[in-house]
Amino acid sequence: MASGAGPEIERLMALLSKLPGLGPRSARRAALALLKKREQLLLPLTSAMQDAADRVTSCHICGALSTQDPCATCADPARDRTMICVVEEDSALWAMERVGAFKGRYHVLGGLLSALDGVRPEDLRLTGLMQRVLDGEVEELIMALPATVEGQTTAHYIADRVRQIAQGVQVTYLARGVPVGGELDWLDDGTIAHAFKSRR
Amino acid sequence: MASGAGPEIERLMALLSKLPGLGPRSARRAALALLKKREQLLLPLTSAMQDAADRVTSCHICGALSTQDPCATCADPARDRTMICVVEEDSALWAMERVGAFKGRYHVLGGLLSALDGVRPEDLRLTGLMQRVLDGEVEELIMALPATVEGQTTAHYIADRVRQIAQGVQVTYLARGVPVGGELDWLDDGTIAHAFKSRR
Ligand SMILES: [Zn+2]
Ligand SMILES: [Zn+2]
Repeated sequence: MASGAGPEIERLMALLSKLPGLGPRSARRAALALLKKREQLLLPLTSAMQDAADRVTSCHICGALSTQDPCATCADPARDRTMICVVEEDSALWAMERVGAFKGRYHVLGGLLSALDGVRPEDLRLTGLMQRVLDGEVEELIMALPATVEGQTTAHYIADRVRQIAQGVQVTYLARGVPVGGELDWLDDGTIAHAFKSRR
Repeated sequence: MASGAGPEIERLMALLSKLPGLGPRSARRAALALLKKREQLLLPLTSAMQDAADRVTSCHICGALSTQDPCATCADPARDRTMICVVEEDSALWAMERVGAFKGRYHVLGGLLSALDGVRPEDLRLTGLMQRVLDGEVEELIMALPATVEGQTTAHYIADRVRQIAQGVQVTYLARGVPVGGELDWLDDGTIAHAFKSRR
């Protein structure tokens, strides 16, 4: 991208274009907006990113990104410790929390099993999940995974393993209502709330 | 956005959503990508933004964003000093430089006259432009402004003022080829190059 803007600005544009949803063109627009709005945008965003880099870690219990460990959800005594909602990524957890329909705790797998992409059980946060299941407090594991092949494969794999180690733990699935192929965090909040209530 | 992610991550999402092209949803995706790719994305982008905040300034001659003053284009003795290409924003300058069809220098107005938005001549980088015209080296002023009402109003206003102070300076316009209503940096490079060659 020889834009004549100099190496610092070109590097900024190149890195911005790596953000999901930003191509080279929108990365240039974003760079220009940052540089033109130094005080209102560039400096606050830089400091927010620096804060995030310094302080964000993964909760050692559920794997969620958080600035405290355990995260706020795991640390909250008011959350129901008998239910764990299993999600692929933090974005799904964030979507659930915006809806506010779920009062239990979470487990963030950090991905989905995929033969195609070579994602194996040991690549996901599964050992910790089985540990939590074995701890004895958990009565229900809610699979809030995408209605895709990978999502369903992962859900069934987890259900099988749970059945082997803890027969008393019920494994449930979000009701249809989550469109096939749909990622959770792209759904409207009402759909998620409904799918939650009628989970099977 | 009560996502349960904590105030630092929420602040990051809120600031990202102020970038052009990113709504709340894509801002959440961008935040997640940054936090998951700490070493490859979050840290390099933070440092690029910090560099930009520390070092980027406006060239005192042409107004372009740059880490040096005068900017590389104004400082380059190989650039034709008889031609100035007048653009609205740095993004148009960057588009021109990518095409590489123009070997003169630039002037970045920083906006367009607009009765509706209350943008007056004194809000644009016009005094500096008239100074450059008066300096005597300039023979041609190329109006590379959008083919919108504001773009054409601004071009005619500049042409009028130039006619009053320096009759010898020719004012030209990008040829049609730039679609009506089109912003320069959204065009393909071939269109820009063509419009440039057949300017009138
Ligand atoms: Zn946690
Ligand atoms: Zn300059």
